[in-house]
Amino acid sequence: MQSIHSKISFPFSTFNPRRLKSVPNWQRLAANVVKERIKGAITMKLDVEKLSSTSNTIYIADLGCAVGPNAFDAMQDVVHFIQQKYTLQCPQSNTTLQFLVLFNDQPSNDFNTLFTSLPRERPYYAAGVPGSFHRRLFPESSIHFVHCSYALHWLSKVPEELLDKNCGAWNKGRIHYTNAPNEVVQAYASQFAKDMEEFLCARAMEIVTGGMMTIIMPGLPNEMPYSQLAASLMYDFMASTFMDMANEGLVSEDEVDSFNLPIYTPSPAEMASVVEKNGHFSIEMLELTNPASLVDGPVDIKAWVIHVRAAMEGMFIKHFSTDIIDEMFDRLTKKLFMFTEQVESGYKDRTQLLVVLIRK
Amino acid sequence: MQSIHSKISFPFSTFNPRRLKSVPNWQRLAANVVKERIKGAITMKLDVEKLSSTSNTIYIADLGCAVGPNAFDAMQDVVHFIQQKYTLQCPQSNTTLQFLVLFNDQPSNDFNTLFTSLPRERPYYAAGVPGSFHRRLFPESSIHFVHCSYALHWLSKVPEELLDKNCGAWNKGRIHYTNAPNEVVQAYASQFAKDMEEFLCARAMEIVTGGMMTIIMPGLPNEMPYSQLAASLMYDFMASTFMDMANEGLVSEDEVDSFNLPIYTPSPAEMASVVEKNGHFSIEMLELTNPASLVDGPVDIKAWVIHVRAAMEGMFIKHFSTDIIDEMFDRLTKKLFMFTEQVESGYKDRTQLLVVLIRK
Repeated sequence: MQSIHSKISFPFSTFNPRRLKSVPNWQRLAANVVKERIKGAITMKLDVEKLSSTSNTIYIADLGCAVGPNAFDAMQDVVHFIQQKYTLQCPQSNTTLQFLVLFNDQPSNDFNTLFTSLPRERPYYAAGVPGSFHRRLFPESSIHFVHCSYALHWLSKVPEELLDKNCGAWNKGRIHYTNAPNEVVQAYASQFAKDMEEFLCARAMEIVTGGMMTIIMPGLPNEMPYSQLAASLMYDFMASTFMDMANEGLVSEDEVDSFNLPIYTPSPAEMASVVEKNGHFSIEMLELTNPASLVDGPVDIKAWVIHVRAAMEGMFIKHFSTDIIDEMFDRLTKKLFMFTEQVESGYKDRTQLLVVLIRK
Repeated sequence: MQSIHSKISFPFSTFNPRRLKSVPNWQRLAANVVKERIKGAITMKLDVEKLSSTSNTIYIADLGCAVGPNAFDAMQDVVHFIQQKYTLQCPQSNTTLQFLVLFNDQPSNDFNTLFTSLPRERPYYAAGVPGSFHRRLFPESSIHFVHCSYALHWLSKVPEELLDKNCGAWNKGRIHYTNAPNEVVQAYASQFAKDMEEFLCARAMEIVTGGMMTIIMPGLPNEMPYSQLAASLMYDFMASTFMDMANEGLVSEDEVDSFNLPIYTPSPAEMASVVEKNGHFSIEMLELTNPASLVDGPVDIKAWVIHVRAAMEGMFIKHFSTDIIDEMFDRLTKKLFMFTEQVESGYKDRTQLLVVLIRK
């Protein structure tokens, strides 16, 4: 059930790892699904011989790394695939490639935990880079490979139109664009397009010609209404839970109306359009993949809510008191148990977007 | 009074910045003393044109950065001097140099504070690199400039001989090599030489040919006994305070005997010898400078002790309980007040070592 991943994904700024101690690591499982595809892309499309022609150090950036360990697994794989490709291209070479991996996330990310969790034995040198990936992070033409997993669905901010009570995009009784009026959906889509343009412009400056970027994120099949995804159900249930609480006077209606989750799930067509408009990258792969096989079985509602809370708590904390958040998630769990069948019937195949780009 | 700086310096692993809120920033003042010398070294000795011939990004490492802000000031200066030198060498060039500064410290350093304190406006991209600078931190030939301020006087560990009760270097009644038997002094000197060799070997691999390294640290004039420095007085008073407390049964004598500060102050001759033995660097500057002019006046005992505690607390906490440490520093302050004259007569001129090396 890929749609789940738009909720269980680890946000690059608000992730709370303490909540995830005893539940399955769905993000790692989701990453495994695309691992072979990325290996294929590196083998077929990355000219490692050319990239290493001026220096034998390959610079890799992982954008939205959170605190590991998924970022460590992904980087270990990428380094391994690049090494294999180099051996394939230059079988006679005596040069040993070296790697510097730059782990990036917001300055508020817990880099202390990231740094103390780094694997002792690793095939790369490691650095942390604080900053928003919607802006420049690295010097011009200094990066050979960028990996960005489950981070780009986080918008840089809630679209401004949603904050204006007198605007058609005032999102009354909802916390997301699920089942929302067209103005709300458009405001989200437009913010995503703006964010992606900033992201791609910054990366276009940083990545060398011939360098590769891989993006993994939740994706919506073309033409499918967003409300058919199980994610929608979760957001709708969150909103209705908040509204129940507003009716009981536990929280004000205004507080709920003015809260919106800055999360967006694009379709492949939308993603292709922003990349083509930007113009600096060629699209080598852009496809919907199936997420982790784990979600083929029955949905573990409790684990799902724990994941969602770990991923989103930071957003809620900025807006609501802890009591309110505790109460909302308690009620949400109970509500989802009552609708297990509906959750399980949510659309799940091919809802993970994998994009592989090459800097022109 | 430079000797003070061997105590007020900010250790690269144990520094506690909360203790320094209302006292003068002596380390910054000390850095200003050598700023002009470093500018001179870059102008005269650094071939920026050559360093930037394959890429217009200059990679700079600050080793032992703690949590800023002194590291930020130093990096701002170094970037500025390198830019000036480039303009001088290539007045017709249209290229704008870019800089990536890699801030390094132990993984236990508070990188979260470092990252959230980074100046918003800065002439460089920034990254953090966790790890001991006695080992490799960066890929081969990937760094153009290394700066290391008030960090190399911290030994990688207490010399092992000092931990053996049956060895001549068992440091009974002392916590440092001040006024200690020759075996103790030799154990410290030998640990320093080993640490420096590891440090220089790692840097030799990382710094490109023609790249520069600047080192600032406490230094002891050749042939001067260590006990003539005011630092000695501090360590002696610490030891005697601990022994008083042992006599009163507040702490065991064994606990004091087995505690040793892993801090070493080399002479210029010693430093020259380790660099020459290593063989990978040419010595462009190796001199004792005067530390901050601030310490020309009367010593502010209270501020001094606060600095010392901020710098060394981490070491004490590993060995003694907080109560014991509080009590020791209280008694130490009182004791130093009683010996203000003696503290002020401690040797102070030319006790800051400045070393500028070029990778051969």
